[in-house]
Formats: sequence, structure tokens, C-alpha cells
Amino acid sequence: MSQTQATDQLEVRFRRLAAINGAADILNWDAATMLPKKSGDVRGEQLAALSEVTHELLTNPALRDLLQQAHSETLEPWRTANLREMQHRYDHANALPQQLVAAITRQRITSEHSWREARRTANYKSFLPEFKKMLQLTREEAAAKSTALNLSAYDAMLDGFDPGMRRTVIDPIFATLKTWLPDFVNQVIEHQKKKPALPLNATVPEAQQKTLGLAMMQRLGFDMSQGRIDSSTHPFCGGVPGDVRITTRYNPEKFVNSLYGVMHETGHALYEQGLPTEWRGLPVGHARGMSVHESQSLFVEMQLGRSAPFLRFLAPQLAQHFCVSGPAWSPENLQRALTKVSRSFIRVDADEVTYPLHVILRYELEQALLTDDLKAEDLPGAWAENMQHHLGVTPPDDAQGCLQDIHWPEGMLGYFPTYTLGAMLAAQLMASVRKAIPDLDAQLERGEFTNIIQWLNKHLHAQASLYPTPELITKATDEPLNPVHYEAHLKARYLGQA
Amino acid sequence: MSQTQATDQLEVRFRRLAAINGAADILNWDAATMLPKKSGDVRGEQLAALSEVTHELLTNPALRDLLQQAHSETLEPWRTANLREMQHRYDHANALPQQLVAAITRQRITSEHSWREARRTANYKSFLPEFKKMLQLTREEAAAKSTALNLSAYDAMLDGFDPGMRRTVIDPIFATLKTWLPDFVNQVIEHQKKKPALPLNATVPEAQQKTLGLAMMQRLGFDMSQGRIDSSTHPFCGGVPGDVRITTRYNPEKFVNSLYGVMHETGHALYEQGLPTEWRGLPVGHARGMSVHESQSLFVEMQLGRSAPFLRFLAPQLAQHFCVSGPAWSPENLQRALTKVSRSFIRVDADEVTYPLHVILRYELEQALLTDDLKAEDLPGAWAENMQHHLGVTPPDDAQGCLQDIHWPEGMLGYFPTYTLGAMLAAQLMASVRKAIPDLDAQLERGEFTNIIQWLNKHLHAQASLYPTPELITKATDEPLNPVHYEAHLKARYLGQA
Repeated sequence: MSQTQATDQLEVRFRRLAAINGAADILNWDAATMLPKKSGDVRGEQLAALSEVTHELLTNPALRDLLQQAHSETLEPWRTANLREMQHRYDHANALPQQLVAAITRQRITSEHSWREARRTANYKSFLPEFKKMLQLTREEAAAKSTALNLSAYDAMLDGFDPGMRRTVIDPIFATLKTWLPDFVNQVIEHQKKKPALPLNATVPEAQQKTLGLAMMQRLGFDMSQGRIDSSTHPFCGGVPGDVRITTRYNPEKFVNSLYGVMHETGHALYEQGLPTEWRGLPVGHARGMSVHESQSLFVEMQLGRSAPFLRFLAPQLAQHFCVSGPAWSPENLQRALTKVSRSFIRVDADEVTYPLHVILRYELEQALLTDDLKAEDLPGAWAENMQHHLGVTPPDDAQGCLQDIHWPEGMLGYFPTYTLGAMLAAQLMASVRKAIPDLDAQLERGEFTNIIQWLNKHLHAQASLYPTPELITKATDEPLNPVHYEAHLKARYLGQA
Repeated sequence: MSQTQATDQLEVRFRRLAAINGAADILNWDAATMLPKKSGDVRGEQLAALSEVTHELLTNPALRDLLQQAHSETLEPWRTANLREMQHRYDHANALPQQLVAAITRQRITSEHSWREARRTANYKSFLPEFKKMLQLTREEAAAKSTALNLSAYDAMLDGFDPGMRRTVIDPIFATLKTWLPDFVNQVIEHQKKKPALPLNATVPEAQQKTLGLAMMQRLGFDMSQGRIDSSTHPFCGGVPGDVRITTRYNPEKFVNSLYGVMHETGHALYEQGLPTEWRGLPVGHARGMSVHESQSLFVEMQLGRSAPFLRFLAPQLAQHFCVSGPAWSPENLQRALTKVSRSFIRVDADEVTYPLHVILRYELEQALLTDDLKAEDLPGAWAENMQHHLGVTPPDDAQGCLQDIHWPEGMLGYFPTYTLGAMLAAQLMASVRKAIPDLDAQLERGEFTNIIQWLNKHLHAQASLYPTPELITKATDEPLNPVHYEAHLKARYLGQA
């Protein structure tokens, strides 16, 4: 009899779970890219059935016994890490009574549907009844996880998206940001007034945008033999490792959105494609939490994609593929246009500098929503007030205010901070890459990404979930998450301060 | 407590089963249309996991008890029919030990892979080892089903594809066919020599083929809001009711293949789209067996699509969409070209007249393979001999002989007869439609399909699996399956005999 019998059995069960989750991932991709417009109900039934199956697999009583036995087995380090990750999934799944899971799944569909209509008509009141139900269920979820995982309610939610992340890490980081970033925004806006960017006016047919996007993702190292690119309303990276599917959207008047959408999602995709194949299907082989994932997309989109040397590479590409010419298309003006800072209402359209303020606003409000210190009824007022406070603007309606994001309508509280933590980690990684590759800028200017991506692969992608996030970051960059790199990055890029 | 408690519970379980099978159906569609070329293994794992789940659901011991209880509950007729169909699925699934199911699933992948390579290189010997393993497992499957279902081995296999179909029904039909069809083929070929068809030479870009194909499927009644059309190597109708996905293939030199591929698959699709929504997810709401399904595709492709009045409608459509003109494009020559009969090697390319001979050959050989009266080693010889006997031609190699079809390499013995039974039923349905719609030809000549499809919907599609196949046919056409309609159809169309 094997010395690791329980672990062996667990691994079989978790590989099966991964295969079923993978099936659901492809069906979700299909729902966003291929699904006929009246086939949503049918798809809903399929996804609900799969999620019932996976929940049953994760709450099967045999699993607890196997986990207990496995903890006393002698395992290689990667299997010990895998056991930790299996336990983490088991703990999260078993924290919730099945009835609550089913209620959340059902309410999520109703709530999202109501939210879409409310956003379209900028009518928060029409969304309020469903939102209150969703919030109530989310509070129950947080309470149940809090008890089971021995974490605060908010940390318990956060831990679902970014294992190991805690308010005690985020609070000081965001507190520091708030001390300097609002004033920094003012400085940058004033600074940019001195040399305003010429607008990048060009009408580029979809076919040409596709060609350049495809060339760029392949140049970055995306493996088309194990992945695809398609169009969807909102760009995303979906599918599974071994079949990674990114999307973008094409608007002839806005090629920047499509190109940088492709670069962002390619950052996510390279992470997924770079996960070790020998651990595929096991929790240890899964991407680390959402902060690390977002660091990879922002690394490509922001750290590489809007850097001066890359834009010197991009300028002739645009001239060649899009037949554009003139002073607006010089590398210098491209950089001015692509790093223009402004106070705006919509998070997903926000620039790199103001983005964290959008996140901090949500971070504060979602904690208050979770504790009921902020009533759903009072959200629009609180939103407007905080926008004015943090960003100095007030949205003209709720569609451009508290109705803009899908996260809360889906009960995803605790997700938002990962965007800014990811941006910070991307800056920290860039500092390490710069040390490791002395001629980084020269490589970027030639459009050569191989060494850079290899570095990321070695230090992050190939490590998958072998280490908890803090350890992974320290191993990769020789220090814990340190926001000083982010601050330095912004000051260098936006005020030219070395 | 409800009087139908066991039935209620069974229906919940079978709806869930249908949702998971539906997920697999979409993943199979994706594998044929979207899957990156090196993502096959990942997809294989997903499909294997889903099939394990559904097999477990169907072999859950609780199901037997529920079925037993349900049989003593008082049910409305449709629920009684549903219980019959649930029992049928249970019986088939539980006939096989789980180990055999797993072995078949694994061997099918290996065998198909080996077959593809063998067909490409026309090297039967290279396929023989895997084929023998597949055949052995298929024999075990047939033996296990034979015992469990109290049917002969071949009938037990047949019953999996076409519930209720038996050799005792097929044997006399095929025996009669053999008495007149080979000579009829000779007569038709001689007859057609008198007025040979002008070839339909036209190079039609994919985009124009797509436009006409789309127009045709919508005209036939395909609901694009609950379905799609895409390209794949082999045309098929996939997806699920509520999300029906057909495919075709485009070759600029062969627009006929694409157009008639679309019509064939639209026939299948109309059946799926026309199934009653209130029974969706229940076995009673499922399409009746493969013979009936094939009758629907052949009805559209052959009975409607190659009829003289439809071709009078089609001729100006081709002129308009494909910019073709001249004597080859007259309705009369279209008919000559589209009903040209010839002795050929490949079943899927065969015309309506010789097709049944391809099927009879397979029907006879697969029975001999199943009983081991024919050894796998001797298949190429037996194939060549039978081709010469039935069709008067000998394939130049095995790729154009016994290696041409995927069915046997996948262990699907008992499937082939449904093609010809479907062709016969299509002719019988056409005779009934002609009685019900006196001005049928006038409607076809105007490209009006509404009344025809409504008739099919009422008498077949909307009945789903409420009745066993023989009863369904009798209710729709006032008589059991009767090959005389098929014979009359062929004589009328090919020799002009009323």
C-alpha cells in the first residue's frame, strides 16, 4: 500500500474537479462570445448543474477524512503545497451551507439581470430590491466564512479572491497612497498641460486592428496552438491552461482600446499558458490569487506597453499596419496620448494614476456595505461624496457612478483591492526585471519580449501556487510587496522624476 | 406528500443529467469548430470527467428504487412516456460494468487516433491492432447489453441508437431492397446517359456561399436567436435544443456541398428546435431515435431540396447570389446534375439511389464482425468483395474502402441502418405531406416552407419521444414504416415513373 494513499486519492478527486471547472470555464467563454441571444437560460441550467456537481465533490464527507489522513503523510514539498491548496478550497466550499450556495447562485442571475437594466436606464432605485437581497446573501456568506475560517468577514471574502490577503496588509498601503496620490494627480494634470497630447485620430478597420493585435500577442509569446482570440463586449481572459482564450473589442475609431485590451489580456494569458503542465489540474498548479494575476496583465499593458522604449517600437508598427503618419504618431506624442491623466467617472477607462483612487473608494464603501454601516439605499449619495472627495468629480448619474461595475451586483465584495495591489506588484516586478536585464530598454525598443517573459515565467508563472503570495513575491523580488516601486514608477513616468 | 413523489424526484435527476449532457454537447461542438489544435488532451479530460459524472448519476442505486416506485404511481400519459424513456436510459447505462465503460471511453480515443492516421496513409494494417481491441470491447458491450436487455447482441447495439428498432424489422426491408435496387441502379445510369447533366462549374467565394446558406436556413425556419452556423471539417448538427449549432464546410469550387450540407443539417436542427420546450431536459422531450432524426435531414435535403419545384425556386437564387448564368443553371439541368447517379466508393458522397447499397454492405459486415464470423484481419477482403457484389466497383485502397467511416473505429456498430431507414421514412412523410398540402409543389416553387415544416412539427417534432418510433410513424402517416414510398419516390424521380 502506498505511503501517500490519501494524498493520491485527493489528487485524483481534485483533477476531476478541475476538469469539470474547466468545462464550466469554456462554457462561460462561449456565453460571452458565441451564445445565441436567446440561449441564456439553457446555458444557465448547464452551469448551475456543473456548479452543483463541483460543490458536491468539494463537500463530500470522504474528503474531510482524506484531508485529515493526508496531513500525516510524508510528502514532497510540491505535494505539501498542493495539500495546503486543496485544504483551502475545501475550507471555503465547506464554510457555506448548500442552501446558501444555491440561493447565491440563483440571486446572482436575478441581480445581474436587474443591474444591467438599471445601468442602461441609470435607475438605481429599480435595482435596489434585488441589490438588497444580493447584499444580504453576501453578508451571510461572509459571516459563514468568517466563522469557518476564523477571519474577519471582509478578510474572509478577500481570501476567496486572493488567498492570504488581509486588510492588515492593504490598510497601511492604501492609507499611504491617500496621503500623496490626490495631490500627485493635480501635479500631473498641471504638468501635462504644458505639452498637451495631439489626439490619436484614426479610423482603423477591424481587420487591420486584428492583424496588429495578433502580431503583438504572438510577439509577446502567446501560443496560438493552445489558445484563441475572439471579440466580446468586455475583454477578458478565459478558458483553461492548455486552452487559453482571450477577447478584445473592436471600434474603428478607438484602436487603442483594442490593442491595449489585447496586451492586457495577453498578460493574463501568458501566466495561464506558463503554468507548469505537470501540475495541471491540481490546485498547486493553479495561478496564484487575483493580485498576482492582475500584476501580469498590468505588467504587459502598463509597464511594458506604455513605456517610452516600447512606444518607439510601436510607432513604426502603427504607421505600417494602420497607414497613419504625422506628428501625432511620433513616439513622443504616442506616450503623451497614452499616459494622459484625467479625473473621470469610469474605473475601467481610468488612467494608471487615478485608477487607485477609484479602487480605494470601492474598498472603503464595500467594507461599509458588508457591515451594514452603509445601507444600500444610501450608496448613491456615499458614492458621489467619495468621488468628490477622492477624485474631485461628481458623476452626472448612477450609471456613471455606483452602477458602473458588475462586482457588487454579483456579490463580489473584496475583489476591488486586487486591481491596485496588482498594479503595485507590476511596478515592483518591473524594478526586478530591470535589474536582471540591464539592456531592457534596448530590447523593448526592438520589440523583443522573450527575455522579459522568460524572467516572469521563471519567477512567477512556473511557480504557480507552490508558495503563498507573500513568499512568492519575496522569492521573485527579494522583498515583500513594497508600494515604493509603484510610487517611483508613477513619479518617473508622469513627472519625469528619476 | 405528493402522489408522484418518486417520479418528481426522477425528473429532477434527469433534468440535471440533461444539463450536464448538454454541457458536453457544447464542448463537443467547440472541439469541432473552435478548439486550438493542441488543446485536444485538455478537452478530452473535461469530456471524460463529465461522462463519469453522468454515468454515476445513471447508475446511482437510488435510481433503481425510484424507478420501481414510480412505476406504481398514477401518472399523466406524458409522464408515463417519460418514465418509459428514463427506464430505457437506466437500463442501457446499468447494463455495462463501470470498468467496461471506462475501457471503451479510453480505447475509443486511441482507436480513433490510430484510424485517422491509417486512413490518411491508406494503411489498414497499422489500424488493425487498435481496431481489434475496439472490436473486442464492443463485443463485450453488446454481450452485456444483450444479457441485461434480453435482446440479441446486434439488437442491443441497435437499440442504443434507435430505441425499439430490431433486426426483424430491418431484415425484410433490406432483403426486398436487394431484390430490385442493384438492377434499378443500372437502369437509372443507362437512363441518365440519354441526357447527361452539364457540370455546375462555378467558383463561389465563401462569403457568398454563407449568405445563401444563411438565407436558406432562415427561410426553412431555423431560429437564429437560438442557434448558430459555423464551419467544420465534417458538417454536423450539434448543441442542444434551445442552442442548436449546425456546421457546414466551404469550398469555392463545390458550393453544392456547402448548400446541401446546410439544408441537411437544418433538417436535423428544425427537429431539435421544434421539440416541446415544456419537456426540455426530460427524456420524453428528447428527439426520437436516429432513424427519425435522419428522416428529418433527408426530408429537407433530398425530398425538398432536390425536387423539381424547389430547383425552379433555387435556379434564380443561384443566379442572383452567385452571378451564374447559361444552360447549366436552368432548373432542368440543376435537377439532372443534383440527381446524377453513379457507382462510387465513398458513402458520404453517394447519391440517393446507390446510398442504401453502401448501407446494406455495412449492415451485413458489422453483424459478422460482432459475432466474430468475420475477423478484423479479413475485413478489407470482405469489403472489396461486397462492394463488387452490391455496387459493381472495387475500391483502389482501404482508405476508400473499409477505412472510410469513423463509426466502427469508435465502436459504433448498429448505427448504419438508421441512414437508410431515415431515407425511407422521409419518403413516407413526403407522401403524407403531399396529401395534407395539395398545392405542395406550388409552395416549394415559391420557396415557401412554412406549411411543410409546420406539418412536420405537429406530427413529429412536437411529439418528441412521447411514443415509441413505430407508433409515432403510424400516428404521423397512418401506417407503419413502409418501404413502398421510398421505392415509388426513386422510380418517380429517377425514371419518371409515376
